[in-house]
Amino acid sequence: MKRVKSALSEAAERVENTLESLLPAGDAPEARLFEAMRYATLGGGKRLRPFLVLASAELFNVNRASALRIAAAIEFVHCYSLVHDDLPAMDDDDMRRGRPTVHRQYDDATAVLAGDALLTLAFEILADEATHPDPKVRCELVTALAAAAGAHGMVGGQMFDLLAESMELDIGAITRLQRLKTGQLIAFACEAGAILGKAPAPLRQALRAYAHDLGLAFQIADDLLDAEGTEAEVGKKVGKDAAAGKATFISVLGTERAREQADLLARQAVLHLDLFEKKADLLCDVARFVVERRA
Amino acid sequence: MKRVKSALSEAAERVENTLESLLPAGDAPEARLFEAMRYATLGGGKRLRPFLVLASAELFNVNRASALRIAAAIEFVHCYSLVHDDLPAMDDDDMRRGRPTVHRQYDDATAVLAGDALLTLAFEILADEATHPDPKVRCELVTALAAAAGAHGMVGGQMFDLLAESMELDIGAITRLQRLKTGQLIAFACEAGAILGKAPAPLRQALRAYAHDLGLAFQIADDLLDAEGTEAEVGKKVGKDAAAGKATFISVLGTERAREQADLLARQAVLHLDLFEKKADLLCDVARFVVERRA
Repeated sequence: MKRVKSALSEAAERVENTLESLLPAGDAPEARLFEAMRYATLGGGKRLRPFLVLASAELFNVNRASALRIAAAIEFVHCYSLVHDDLPAMDDDDMRRGRPTVHRQYDDATAVLAGDALLTLAFEILADEATHPDPKVRCELVTALAAAAGAHGMVGGQMFDLLAESMELDIGAITRLQRLKTGQLIAFACEAGAILGKAPAPLRQALRAYAHDLGLAFQIADDLLDAEGTEAEVGKKVGKDAAAGKATFISVLGTERAREQADLLARQAVLHLDLFEKKADLLCDVARFVVERRA
Repeated sequence: MKRVKSALSEAAERVENTLESLLPAGDAPEARLFEAMRYATLGGGKRLRPFLVLASAELFNVNRASALRIAAAIEFVHCYSLVHDDLPAMDDDDMRRGRPTVHRQYDDATAVLAGDALLTLAFEILADEATHPDPKVRCELVTALAAAAGAHGMVGGQMFDLLAESMELDIGAITRLQRLKTGQLIAFACEAGAILGKAPAPLRQALRAYAHDLGLAFQIADDLLDAEGTEAEVGKKVGKDAAAGKATFISVLGTERAREQADLLARQAVLHLDLFEKKADLLCDVARFVVERRA
Protein backbone atom coordinates (compact mmCIF):
# COMPACT_ATOMS: atom_id res chain seq x y z
CA MET A 1 0.00 0.00 0.00
CA LYS A 2 2.78 2.42 0.87
CA ARG A 3 4.44 1.89 -2.51
CA VAL A 4 1.19 2.54 -4.36
CA LYS A 5 0.48 5.65 -2.33
CA SER A 6 3.86 7.15 -3.06
CA ALA A 7 3.63 6.14 -6.74
CA LEU A 8 0.19 7.74 -6.91
CA SER A 9 1.30 10.97 -5.32
CA GLU A 10 4.42 11.11 -7.47
CA ALA A 11 2.29 10.69 -10.59
CA ALA A 12 -0.24 13.21 -9.30
CA GLU A 13 2.47 15.82 -8.92
CA ARG A 14 3.83 15.33 -12.40
CA VAL A 15 0.33 15.38 -13.87
CA GLU A 16 -0.53 18.53 -11.96
CA ASN A 17 2.30 20.36 -13.71
CA THR A 18 1.18 19.07 -17.08
CA LEU A 19 -2.44 20.07 -16.47
CA GLU A 20 -1.24 23.51 -15.41
CA SER A 21 0.81 23.96 -18.57
CA LEU A 22 -2.05 22.89 -20.87
CA LEU A 23 -4.82 25.00 -19.32
CA PRO A 24 -5.72 28.39 -20.77
CA ALA A 25 -4.79 31.50 -18.78
CA GLY A 26 -4.70 35.24 -19.29
CA ASP A 27 -6.85 38.29 -18.77
CA ALA A 28 -9.25 38.20 -21.72
CA PRO A 29 -12.82 39.40 -21.04
CA GLU A 30 -13.81 35.71 -20.90
CA ALA A 31 -11.05 34.86 -18.38
CA ARG A 32 -13.72 33.68 -15.93
CA LEU A 33 -13.95 30.59 -18.13
CA PHE A 34 -10.21 29.94 -17.85
CA GLU A 35 -10.40 30.35 -14.06
CA ALA A 36 -13.29 27.90 -13.78
CA MET A 37 -11.41 25.37 -15.93
CA ARG A 38 -8.43 25.65 -13.61
CA TYR A 39 -10.57 25.46 -10.49
CA ALA A 40 -12.24 22.32 -11.86
CA THR A 41 -8.99 20.52 -12.57
CA LEU A 42 -6.10 21.72 -10.42
CA GLY A 43 -5.21 20.90 -6.85
CA GLY A 44 -7.17 17.81 -6.04
CA GLY A 45 -8.27 14.32 -6.82
CA LYS A 46 -6.53 10.98 -6.61
CA ARG A 47 -5.49 11.25 -10.27
CA LEU A 48 -6.13 7.54 -10.66
CA ARG A 49 -6.70 7.72 -14.40
CA PRO A 50 -3.49 9.66 -15.10
CA PHE A 51 -1.64 7.20 -12.92
CA LEU A 52 -3.02 4.30 -14.96
CA VAL A 53 -1.87 5.97 -18.18
CA LEU A 54 1.64 6.46 -16.85
CA ALA A 55 1.88 2.97 -15.39
CA SER A 56 0.58 1.27 -18.53
CA ALA A 57 2.80 3.41 -20.76
CA GLU A 58 5.80 2.27 -18.72
CA LEU A 59 5.07 -1.33 -19.71
CA PHE A 60 5.96 -0.38 -23.26
CA ASN A 61 8.78 2.06 -22.51
CA VAL A 62 6.79 4.91 -23.94
CA ASN A 63 8.18 8.43 -23.96
CA ARG A 64 7.19 9.98 -20.61
CA ALA A 65 6.20 13.36 -22.05
CA SER A 66 3.74 11.68 -24.44
CA ALA A 67 2.20 9.67 -21.63
CA LEU A 68 1.83 12.78 -19.47
CA ARG A 69 -0.09 14.58 -22.22
CA ILE A 70 -2.51 11.68 -22.57
CA ALA A 71 -2.81 11.46 -18.80
CA ALA A 72 -3.74 15.14 -18.72
CA ALA A 73 -6.26 14.77 -21.54
CA ILE A 74 -8.03 11.91 -19.74
CA GLU A 75 -8.05 13.83 -16.48
CA PHE A 76 -9.60 16.81 -18.27
CA VAL A 77 -12.36 14.53 -19.54
CA HIS A 78 -12.86 13.05 -16.08
CA CYS A 79 -13.04 16.54 -14.52
CA TYR A 80 -15.45 17.85 -17.16
CA SER A 81 -17.75 14.91 -16.42
CA LEU A 82 -17.66 15.72 -12.69
CA VAL A 83 -18.43 19.39 -13.34
CA HIS A 84 -21.47 18.54 -15.47
CA ASP A 85 -22.64 15.69 -13.22
CA ASP A 86 -22.53 17.98 -10.18
CA LEU A 87 -24.90 20.53 -11.79
CA PRO A 88 -28.26 21.15 -10.09
CA ALA A 89 -30.01 19.65 -13.14
CA MET A 90 -28.06 16.42 -12.60
CA ASP A 91 -26.74 15.13 -9.26
CA ASP A 92 -26.96 18.57 -7.61
CA ASP A 93 -23.80 18.31 -5.53
CA ASP A 94 -22.40 21.23 -3.56
CA MET A 95 -19.08 19.74 -2.50
CA ARG A 96 -16.36 17.93 -4.40
CA ARG A 97 -12.84 17.11 -3.23
CA GLY A 98 -13.58 19.00 -0.04
CA ARG A 99 -14.50 22.31 -1.68
CA PRO A 100 -17.49 23.87 -3.40
CA THR A 101 -18.32 22.39 -6.79
CA VAL A 102 -17.69 24.56 -9.85
CA HIS A 103 -21.28 25.77 -10.21
CA ARG A 104 -21.33 26.71 -6.49
CA GLN A 105 -18.03 28.55 -6.76
CA TYR A 106 -18.95 30.26 -10.05
CA ASP A 107 -22.44 29.68 -11.47
CA ASP A 108 -24.30 27.09 -13.54
CA ALA A 109 -23.58 28.71 -16.91
CA THR A 110 -19.86 28.95 -16.22
CA ALA A 111 -19.84 25.32 -15.07
CA VAL A 112 -21.52 24.12 -18.28
CA LEU A 113 -19.05 26.09 -20.39
CA ALA A 114 -15.98 25.08 -18.37
CA GLY A 115 -16.97 21.43 -18.87
CA ASP A 116 -17.48 21.95 -22.59
CA ALA A 117 -14.11 23.65 -22.93
CA LEU A 118 -12.29 20.93 -20.96
CA LEU A 119 -13.73 18.20 -23.18
CA THR A 120 -12.70 20.11 -26.29
CA LEU A 121 -9.23 20.72 -24.88
CA ALA A 122 -8.73 16.98 -24.33
CA PHE A 123 -9.18 16.27 -28.03
CA GLU A 124 -6.97 19.19 -28.97
CA ILE A 125 -4.19 17.72 -26.84
CA LEU A 126 -4.49 14.22 -28.30
CA ALA A 127 -4.38 15.42 -31.91
CA ASP A 128 -1.32 17.62 -31.35
CA GLU A 129 2.00 16.55 -32.81
CA ALA A 130 3.62 16.91 -29.38
CA THR A 131 1.60 13.90 -28.20
CA HIS A 132 3.12 11.42 -30.65
CA PRO A 133 5.06 11.80 -33.90
CA ASP A 134 2.84 9.29 -35.73
CA PRO A 135 -0.52 10.85 -36.73
CA LYS A 136 -2.04 7.39 -37.00
CA VAL A 137 -1.41 6.85 -33.29
CA ARG A 138 -2.92 10.26 -32.51
CA CYS A 139 -6.04 9.46 -34.53
CA GLU A 140 -6.34 6.15 -32.72
CA LEU A 141 -6.19 7.98 -29.39
CA VAL A 142 -8.90 10.43 -30.46
CA THR A 143 -11.13 7.62 -31.68
CA ALA A 144 -10.67 5.59 -28.50
CA LEU A 145 -11.28 8.56 -26.20
CA ALA A 146 -14.39 9.62 -28.11
CA ALA A 147 -15.77 6.09 -27.96
CA ALA A 148 -15.09 5.84 -24.22
CA ALA A 149 -16.50 9.26 -23.39
CA GLY A 150 -19.50 9.55 -25.72
CA ALA A 151 -23.06 8.31 -26.10
CA HIS A 152 -21.95 4.68 -26.05
CA GLY A 153 -19.64 5.30 -23.11
CA MET A 154 -19.46 7.75 -20.23
CA VAL A 155 -22.22 10.15 -21.30
CA GLY A 156 -24.55 7.23 -22.05
CA GLY A 157 -23.72 5.86 -18.60
CA GLN A 158 -24.61 9.13 -16.92
CA MET A 159 -27.94 9.20 -18.78
CA PHE A 160 -28.60 5.62 -17.70
CA ASP A 161 -27.66 6.56 -14.13
CA LEU A 162 -30.15 9.45 -14.05
CA LEU A 163 -32.91 7.27 -15.47
CA ALA A 164 -32.01 4.41 -13.10
CA GLU A 165 -33.47 6.32 -10.17
CA SER A 166 -36.89 5.22 -11.38
CA MET A 167 -35.87 1.71 -12.53
CA GLU A 168 -35.41 -1.64 -10.81
CA LEU A 169 -31.88 -2.72 -11.71
CA ASP A 170 -30.45 -6.19 -11.29
CA ILE A 171 -26.75 -6.82 -10.87
CA GLY A 172 -26.24 -7.21 -14.62
CA ALA A 173 -27.81 -3.82 -15.32
CA ILE A 174 -25.79 -2.12 -12.57
CA THR A 175 -22.62 -3.65 -13.93
CA ARG A 176 -23.45 -2.40 -17.43
CA LEU A 177 -24.26 1.06 -16.06
CA GLN A 178 -20.96 1.35 -14.23
CA ARG A 179 -19.03 -0.06 -17.13
CA LEU A 180 -20.39 2.78 -19.26
CA LYS A 181 -20.24 5.54 -16.67
CA THR A 182 -16.77 4.97 -15.25
CA GLY A 183 -15.38 1.75 -16.71
CA GLN A 184 -14.84 2.85 -20.28
CA LEU A 185 -12.71 5.87 -19.40
CA ILE A 186 -10.65 3.78 -16.99
CA ALA A 187 -10.22 1.20 -19.74
CA PHE A 188 -9.03 3.90 -22.11
CA ALA A 189 -6.55 5.13 -19.49
CA CYS A 190 -5.03 1.65 -19.34
CA GLU A 191 -5.19 1.08 -23.09
CA ALA A 192 -3.65 4.45 -23.95
CA GLY A 193 -0.20 3.24 -22.92
CA ALA A 194 -0.59 0.28 -25.26
CA ILE A 195 -1.74 2.50 -28.12
CA LEU A 196 1.23 4.83 -27.61
CA GLY A 197 3.56 1.85 -27.49
CA LYS A 198 1.96 0.22 -30.56
CA ALA A 199 1.57 -2.89 -28.43
CA PRO A 200 0.45 -6.20 -29.97
CA ALA A 201 -3.26 -7.04 -29.67
CA PRO A 202 -3.02 -9.65 -26.87
CA LEU A 203 -1.22 -7.23 -24.54
CA ARG A 204 -3.70 -4.52 -25.36
CA GLN A 205 -6.55 -6.89 -24.68
CA ALA A 206 -5.01 -7.94 -21.36
CA LEU A 207 -4.87 -4.32 -20.24
CA ARG A 208 -8.50 -3.77 -21.21
CA ALA A 209 -9.55 -6.85 -19.25
CA TYR A 210 -7.54 -5.66 -16.24
CA ALA A 211 -9.10 -2.21 -16.53
CA HIS A 212 -12.58 -3.64 -16.76
CA ASP A 213 -12.25 -5.52 -13.48
CA LEU A 214 -10.37 -2.67 -11.86
CA GLY A 215 -13.06 -0.18 -12.86
CA LEU A 216 -15.83 -2.28 -11.34
CA ALA A 217 -13.84 -2.93 -8.17
CA PHE A 218 -13.20 0.81 -7.92
CA GLN A 219 -16.89 1.58 -8.32
CA ILE A 220 -17.99 -0.92 -5.69
CA ALA A 221 -15.41 0.54 -3.31
CA ASP A 222 -16.87 3.97 -4.10
CA ASP A 223 -20.36 2.74 -3.29
CA LEU A 224 -19.05 1.31 -0.01
CA LEU A 225 -17.49 4.66 0.87
CA ASP A 226 -20.75 6.40 0.05
CA ALA A 227 -22.56 3.95 2.35
CA GLU A 228 -20.02 3.86 5.18
CA GLY A 229 -17.63 6.80 4.94
CA THR A 230 -18.00 10.28 6.41
CA GLU A 231 -18.09 13.51 4.40
CA ALA A 232 -14.79 14.59 5.99
CA GLU A 233 -13.06 11.38 4.84
CA VAL A 234 -14.51 11.26 1.35
CA GLY A 235 -14.54 15.01 0.55
CA LYS A 236 -18.09 15.00 -0.80
CA LYS A 237 -21.55 14.32 0.53
CA VAL A 238 -22.10 10.65 1.46
CA GLY A 239 -25.17 8.49 1.85
CA LYS A 240 -26.69 10.09 -1.24
CA ASP A 241 -27.37 6.86 -3.12
CA ALA A 242 -29.40 5.34 -0.33
CA ALA A 243 -31.26 8.62 0.26
CA ALA A 244 -32.19 8.76 -3.43
CA GLY A 245 -33.32 5.12 -3.31
CA LYS A 246 -30.81 4.43 -6.09
CA ALA A 247 -29.88 0.90 -7.02
CA THR A 248 -26.17 0.37 -6.37
CA PHE A 249 -23.96 -2.65 -5.83
CA ILE A 250 -24.67 -2.21 -2.12
CA SER A 251 -28.45 -2.05 -2.39
CA VAL A 252 -28.51 -5.19 -4.52
CA LEU A 253 -25.70 -7.25 -2.93
CA GLY A 254 -25.57 -5.88 0.61
CA THR A 255 -22.39 -4.51 2.17
CA GLU A 256 -20.79 -7.86 2.93
CA ARG A 257 -21.17 -9.41 -0.51
CA ALA A 258 -20.31 -6.14 -2.24
CA ARG A 259 -16.99 -6.09 -0.39
CA GLU A 260 -16.33 -9.71 -1.34
CA GLN A 261 -17.17 -8.91 -4.94
CA ALA A 262 -14.75 -5.97 -4.98
CA ASP A 263 -11.98 -8.18 -3.57
CA LEU A 264 -12.71 -10.85 -6.14
CA LEU A 265 -12.58 -8.33 -8.98
CA ALA A 266 -9.29 -6.92 -7.72
CA ARG A 267 -7.77 -10.42 -7.67
CA GLN A 268 -9.19 -11.14 -11.11
CA ALA A 269 -7.77 -7.88 -12.45
CA VAL A 270 -4.30 -8.92 -11.36
CA LEU A 271 -4.55 -12.27 -13.16
CA HIS A 272 -5.00 -10.53 -16.51
CA LEU A 273 -1.56 -9.01 -16.09
CA ASP A 274 0.29 -12.35 -15.93
CA LEU A 275 1.60 -11.77 -19.44
CA PHE A 276 3.63 -8.80 -18.24
CA GLU A 277 5.26 -10.67 -15.34
CA LYS A 278 7.20 -8.49 -12.87
CA LYS A 279 6.83 -5.38 -15.03
CA ALA A 280 3.19 -4.95 -14.00
CA ASP A 281 3.72 -5.15 -10.24
CA LEU A 282 2.64 -1.58 -9.69
CA LEU A 283 -0.63 -2.06 -11.60
CA CYS A 284 -1.26 -5.18 -9.50
CA ASP A 285 -0.74 -3.20 -6.31
CA VAL A 286 -3.14 -0.54 -7.53
CA ALA A 287 -5.88 -3.12 -7.96
CA ARG A 288 -5.55 -4.00 -4.29
CA PHE A 289 -5.28 -0.35 -3.34
CA VAL A 290 -8.58 0.72 -4.93
CA VAL A 291 -10.57 -1.75 -2.86
CA GLU A 292 -8.75 -0.99 0.39
CA ARG A 293 -8.69 2.83 0.22
CA ARG A 294 -10.67 4.87 2.74
CA ALA A 295 -11.28 7.93 0.51
CA MET B 1 -30.73 34.26 -54.62
CA LYS B 2 -32.71 31.44 -56.21
CA ARG B 3 -29.53 29.55 -57.07
CA VAL B 4 -28.23 29.88 -53.51
CA LYS B 5 -31.51 28.79 -52.02
CA SER B 6 -31.65 25.65 -54.12
CA ALA B 7 -27.96 24.91 -53.48
CA LEU B 8 -28.56 25.36 -49.74
CA SER B 9 -31.57 23.07 -49.69
CA GLU B 10 -29.80 20.48 -51.84
CA ALA B 11 -26.85 20.48 -49.41
CA ALA B 12 -29.21 20.41 -46.41
CA GLU B 13 -30.87 17.28 -47.74
CA ARG B 14 -27.62 15.45 -48.29
CA VAL B 15 -26.32 16.52 -44.89
CA GLU B 16 -29.55 15.42 -43.22
CA ASN B 17 -28.96 11.88 -44.47
CA THR B 18 -25.37 11.92 -43.25
CA LEU B 19 -26.37 13.24 -39.81
CA GLU B 20 -29.00 10.52 -39.59
CA SER B 21 -26.52 7.78 -40.42
CA LEU B 22 -23.97 9.00 -37.87
CA LEU B 23 -26.31 9.47 -34.90
CA PRO B 24 -26.74 6.73 -32.29
CA ALA B 25 -30.01 4.82 -32.21
CA GLY B 26 -31.43 1.74 -30.54
CA ASP B 27 -33.38 0.75 -27.48
CA ALA B 28 -30.75 0.73 -24.73
CA PRO B 29 -31.88 1.92 -21.27
CA GLU B 30 -30.16 5.23 -22.05
CA ALA B 31 -31.97 5.60 -25.41
CA ARG B 32 -33.46 8.89 -24.21
CA LEU B 33 -30.01 10.35 -24.83
CA PHE B 34 -29.98 9.10 -28.42
CA GLU B 35 -33.46 10.54 -28.98
CA ALA B 36 -32.46 13.93 -27.60
CA MET B 37 -29.36 13.96 -29.83
CA ARG B 38 -31.56 13.26 -32.86
CA TYR B 39 -34.13 15.85 -31.81
CA ALA B 40 -31.36 18.43 -31.41
CA THR B 41 -29.89 17.85 -34.85
CA LEU B 42 -32.39 16.46 -37.36
CA GLY B 43 -35.09 18.19 -39.34
CA GLY B 44 -34.23 21.83 -39.17
CA GLY B 45 -31.80 24.67 -39.55
CA LYS B 46 -30.35 26.40 -42.58
CA ARG B 47 -27.33 24.07 -42.50
CA LEU B 48 -25.14 27.01 -43.47
CA ARG B 49 -21.97 25.52 -41.99
CA PRO B 50 -22.37 22.15 -43.77
CA PHE B 51 -23.06 24.04 -46.97
CA LEU B 52 -19.83 26.01 -46.56
CA VAL B 53 -17.88 22.78 -46.06
CA LEU B 54 -19.32 21.24 -49.21
CA ALA B 55 -18.86 24.39 -51.29
CA SER B 56 -15.28 24.94 -50.15
CA ALA B 57 -14.44 21.26 -50.64
CA GLU B 58 -15.68 21.51 -54.22
CA LEU B 59 -13.03 24.13 -54.92
CA PHE B 60 -10.43 21.42 -54.43
CA ASN B 61 -12.32 18.53 -56.00
CA VAL B 62 -12.47 16.75 -52.68
CA ASN B 63 -14.23 13.42 -52.34
CA ARG B 64 -17.88 14.21 -51.62
CA ALA B 65 -18.30 11.54 -48.91
CA SER B 66 -15.36 12.98 -46.94
CA ALA B 67 -16.77 16.47 -47.16
CA LEU B 68 -20.19 15.28 -45.99
CA ARG B 69 -18.68 13.68 -42.89
CA ILE B 70 -16.91 16.90 -41.96
CA ALA B 71 -20.06 18.86 -42.70
CA ALA B 72 -21.95 16.60 -40.30
CA ALA B 73 -19.28 16.90 -37.60
CA ILE B 74 -19.40 20.70 -37.74
CA GLU B 75 -23.20 20.69 -37.67
CA PHE B 76 -23.09 18.45 -34.58
CA VAL B 77 -20.83 20.97 -32.88
CA HIS B 78 -23.09 23.84 -33.92
CA CYS B 79 -26.16 22.01 -32.62
CA TYR B 80 -24.49 21.06 -29.32
CA SER B 81 -23.66 24.74 -28.78
CA LEU B 82 -27.29 25.71 -29.39
CA VAL B 83 -28.54 23.05 -26.96
CA HIS B 84 -26.23 24.27 -24.19
CA ASP B 85 -26.74 27.98 -24.96
CA ASP B 86 -30.53 27.53 -24.78
CA LEU B 87 -30.37 26.11 -21.23
CA PRO B 88 -32.12 28.05 -18.44
CA ALA B 89 -28.71 28.71 -16.86
CA MET B 90 -27.57 30.37 -20.09
CA ASP B 91 -29.85 32.17 -22.59
CA ASP B 92 -32.99 30.43 -21.30
CA ASP B 93 -34.72 29.96 -24.64
CA ASP B 94 -37.90 27.93 -25.06
CA MET B 95 -38.12 27.86 -28.85
CA ARG B 96 -35.58 27.05 -31.55
CA ARG B 97 -36.24 26.43 -35.23
CA GLY B 98 -39.96 26.78 -34.52
CA ARG B 99 -40.15 24.01 -31.90
CA PRO B 100 -39.41 23.57 -28.20
CA THR B 101 -35.71 23.62 -27.32
CA VAL B 102 -34.15 20.35 -26.18
CA HIS B 103 -34.40 21.06 -22.45
CA ARG B 104 -38.08 22.01 -22.90
CA GLN B 105 -38.82 18.87 -24.89
CA TYR B 106 -36.79 16.60 -22.55
CA ASP B 107 -35.22 18.15 -19.43
CA ASP B 108 -32.13 20.11 -18.45
CA ALA B 109 -30.02 17.07 -17.58
CA THR B 110 -30.78 15.36 -20.88
CA ALA B 111 -29.97 18.56 -22.74
CA VAL B 112 -26.58 18.89 -21.04
CA LEU B 113 -25.75 15.26 -21.83
CA ALA B 114 -27.03 15.39 -25.41
CA GLY B 115 -24.78 18.38 -26.02
CA ASP B 116 -21.81 16.62 -24.47
CA ALA B 117 -22.39 13.53 -26.59
CA LEU B 118 -22.78 15.53 -29.82
CA LEU B 119 -19.48 17.33 -29.23
CA THR B 120 -17.75 14.02 -28.54
CA LEU B 121 -19.31 12.46 -31.64
CA ALA B 122 -17.94 15.25 -33.82
CA PHE B 123 -14.37 14.39 -32.86
CA GLU B 124 -15.03 10.69 -33.28
CA ILE B 125 -16.18 11.34 -36.85
CA LEU B 126 -13.17 13.47 -37.77
CA ALA B 127 -10.63 10.93 -36.49
CA ASP B 128 -12.26 8.02 -38.32
CA GLU B 129 -10.49 6.55 -41.33
CA ALA B 130 -13.67 6.96 -43.38
CA THR B 131 -13.17 10.74 -43.21
CA HIS B 132 -9.83 10.78 -45.03
CA PRO B 133 -7.23 8.11 -45.80
CA ASP B 134 -4.37 10.31 -44.52
CA PRO B 135 -4.23 10.36 -40.67
CA LYS B 136 -2.26 13.61 -40.81
CA VAL B 137 -5.22 15.30 -42.47
CA ARG B 138 -7.57 13.84 -39.87
CA CYS B 139 -5.40 15.12 -37.02
CA GLU B 140 -5.30 18.52 -38.63
CA LEU B 141 -9.10 18.54 -38.76
CA VAL B 142 -9.37 17.57 -35.09
CA THR B 143 -6.89 20.26 -34.10
CA ALA B 144 -8.64 22.94 -36.13
CA LEU B 145 -12.10 22.01 -34.85
CA ALA B 146 -10.94 21.93 -31.23
CA ALA B 147 -9.28 25.34 -31.61
CA ALA B 148 -12.41 26.82 -33.21
CA ALA B 149 -14.82 25.31 -30.68
CA GLY B 150 -12.90 25.56 -27.40
CA ALA B 151 -11.92 28.10 -24.75
CA HIS B 152 -10.17 30.30 -27.32
CA GLY B 153 -13.05 29.95 -29.76
CA MET B 154 -16.77 29.29 -29.53
CA VAL B 155 -17.00 28.40 -25.82
CA GLY B 156 -14.88 31.42 -24.91
CA GLY B 157 -17.19 33.53 -27.04
CA GLN B 158 -20.27 32.26 -25.23
CA MET B 159 -18.64 33.05 -21.87
CA PHE B 160 -17.80 36.54 -23.12
CA ASP B 161 -21.37 36.93 -24.38
CA LEU B 162 -22.84 36.05 -20.98
CA LEU B 163 -20.49 38.43 -19.21
CA ALA B 164 -21.14 41.15 -21.81
CA GLU B 165 -24.61 41.74 -20.41
CA SER B 166 -22.97 43.72 -17.64
CA MET B 167 -20.25 45.36 -19.78
CA GLU B 168 -20.07 48.39 -22.04
CA LEU B 169 -18.81 47.05 -25.38
CA ASP B 170 -17.47 49.11 -28.24
CA ILE B 171 -17.55 47.94 -31.83
CA GLY B 172 -14.12 46.33 -31.52
CA ALA B 173 -15.18 44.26 -28.53
CA ILE B 174 -18.44 43.20 -30.18
CA THR B 175 -16.53 42.17 -33.28
CA ARG B 176 -14.13 40.11 -31.19
CA LEU B 177 -17.01 38.52 -29.28
CA GLN B 178 -18.78 37.46 -32.45
CA ARG B 179 -15.60 36.29 -34.06
CA LEU B 180 -15.14 33.91 -31.13
CA LYS B 181 -18.75 32.91 -30.66
CA THR B 182 -19.75 32.22 -34.27
CA GLY B 183 -16.91 33.31 -36.52
CA GLN B 184 -14.37 30.65 -35.67
CA LEU B 185 -16.64 27.71 -36.41
CA ILE B 186 -17.73 29.31 -39.69
CA ALA B 187 -14.06 29.83 -40.53
CA PHE B 188 -13.35 26.18 -39.82
CA ALA B 189 -16.27 25.16 -42.07
CA CYS B 190 -14.69 27.10 -44.94
CA GLU B 191 -11.17 25.97 -44.16
CA ALA B 192 -12.10 22.30 -43.81
CA GLY B 193 -12.45 21.91 -47.58
CA ALA B 194 -8.94 23.33 -47.98
CA ILE B 195 -7.54 20.99 -45.33
CA LEU B 196 -9.18 17.99 -47.01
CA GLY B 197 -7.82 19.12 -50.37
CA LYS B 198 -4.35 19.81 -48.97
CA ALA B 199 -4.64 23.26 -50.50
CA PRO B 200 -1.65 25.63 -50.61
CA ALA B 201 -1.46 28.24 -47.83
CA PRO B 202 -2.58 31.30 -49.85
CA LEU B 203 -5.83 29.60 -50.91
CA ARG B 204 -6.44 28.45 -47.36
CA GLN B 205 -5.81 31.95 -46.10
CA ALA B 206 -8.19 33.40 -48.69
CA LEU B 207 -10.95 31.10 -47.48
CA ARG B 208 -10.35 32.07 -43.87
CA ALA B 209 -10.50 35.76 -44.75
CA TYR B 210 -13.72 35.17 -46.70
CA ALA B 211 -15.17 33.24 -43.75
CA HIS B 212 -14.23 35.94 -41.31
CA ASP B 213 -16.13 38.63 -43.21
CA LEU B 214 -18.98 36.25 -43.98
CA GLY B 215 -19.33 35.28 -40.31
CA LEU B 216 -19.55 38.89 -39.18
CA ALA B 217 -22.00 39.78 -41.96
CA PHE B 218 -24.09 36.78 -40.93
CA GLN B 219 -24.08 37.88 -37.30
CA ILE B 220 -25.10 41.45 -38.07
CA ALA B 221 -27.92 40.10 -40.25
CA ASP B 222 -28.94 37.92 -37.29
CA ASP B 223 -28.98 40.94 -35.00
CA LEU B 224 -31.12 42.80 -37.55
CA LEU B 225 -33.57 39.90 -37.66
CA ASP B 226 -33.70 39.87 -33.87
CA ALA B 227 -34.45 43.59 -33.91
CA GLU B 228 -36.88 43.66 -36.85
CA GLY B 229 -38.18 40.14 -37.57
CA THR B 230 -41.19 38.36 -36.09
CA GLU B 231 -41.05 35.12 -34.12
CA ALA B 232 -43.00 33.36 -36.90
CA GLU B 233 -40.43 34.40 -39.51
CA VAL B 234 -37.33 33.68 -37.47
CA GLY B 235 -38.49 30.53 -35.59
CA LYS B 236 -37.27 31.73 -32.21
CA LYS B 237 -38.06 34.56 -29.84
CA VAL B 238 -37.02 37.98 -31.19
CA GLY B 239 -36.25 41.32 -29.53
CA LYS B 240 -34.34 39.50 -26.79
CA ASP B 241 -31.11 41.45 -27.18
CA ALA B 242 -32.75 44.84 -26.75
CA ALA B 243 -34.88 43.57 -23.85
CA ALA B 244 -31.72 42.32 -22.09
CA GLY B 245 -30.00 45.64 -22.74
CA LYS B 246 -27.29 43.70 -24.53
CA ALA B 247 -24.71 45.45 -26.65
CA THR B 248 -25.06 44.29 -30.27
CA PHE B 249 -24.03 45.66 -33.63
CA ILE B 250 -27.48 47.32 -33.72
CA SER B 251 -27.26 48.95 -30.31
CA VAL B 252 -23.86 50.41 -31.12
CA LEU B 253 -24.24 51.24 -34.83
CA GLY B 254 -27.99 51.71 -35.20
CA THR B 255 -30.09 49.79 -37.74
CA GLU B 256 -29.08 51.83 -40.76
CA ARG B 257 -25.32 51.66 -40.28
CA ALA B 258 -25.46 48.03 -39.19
CA ARG B 259 -27.14 47.15 -42.47
CA GLU B 260 -24.52 49.11 -44.41
CA GLN B 261 -21.79 47.35 -42.46
CA ALA B 262 -23.24 43.92 -43.27
CA ASP B 263 -23.41 44.82 -46.97
CA LEU B 264 -19.84 46.05 -46.90
CA LEU B 265 -18.62 42.87 -45.22
CA ALA B 266 -20.46 40.71 -47.76
CA ARG B 267 -18.79 42.59 -50.62
CA GLN B 268 -15.43 42.36 -48.89
CA ALA B 269 -15.90 38.61 -48.37
CA VAL B 270 -16.38 38.14 -52.10
CA LEU B 271 -13.17 40.00 -52.93
CA HIS B 272 -11.12 37.47 -50.97
CA LEU B 273 -12.27 34.77 -53.40
CA ASP B 274 -10.79 36.45 -56.51
CA LEU B 275 -8.04 33.83 -56.56
CA PHE B 276 -10.58 31.10 -57.30
CA GLU B 277 -12.18 32.96 -60.22
CA LYS B 278 -15.42 31.45 -61.53
CA LYS B 279 -15.11 28.35 -59.34
CA ALA B 280 -16.16 30.29 -56.23
CA ASP B 281 -19.33 31.82 -57.69
CA LEU B 282 -21.57 29.92 -55.30
CA LEU B 283 -19.62 31.07 -52.22
CA CYS B 284 -19.87 34.64 -53.55
CA ASP B 285 -23.64 34.28 -53.91
CA VAL B 286 -23.88 32.94 -50.34
CA ALA B 287 -22.19 36.05 -48.99
CA ARG B 288 -24.92 38.16 -50.57
CA PHE B 289 -27.58 35.72 -49.42
CA VAL B 290 -26.70 35.86 -45.72
CA VAL B 291 -27.23 39.63 -45.56
CA GLU B 292 -30.45 39.58 -47.61
CA ARG B 293 -32.21 36.62 -45.95
CA ARG B 294 -35.39 37.18 -43.95
CA ALA B 295 -35.03 34.22 -41.55
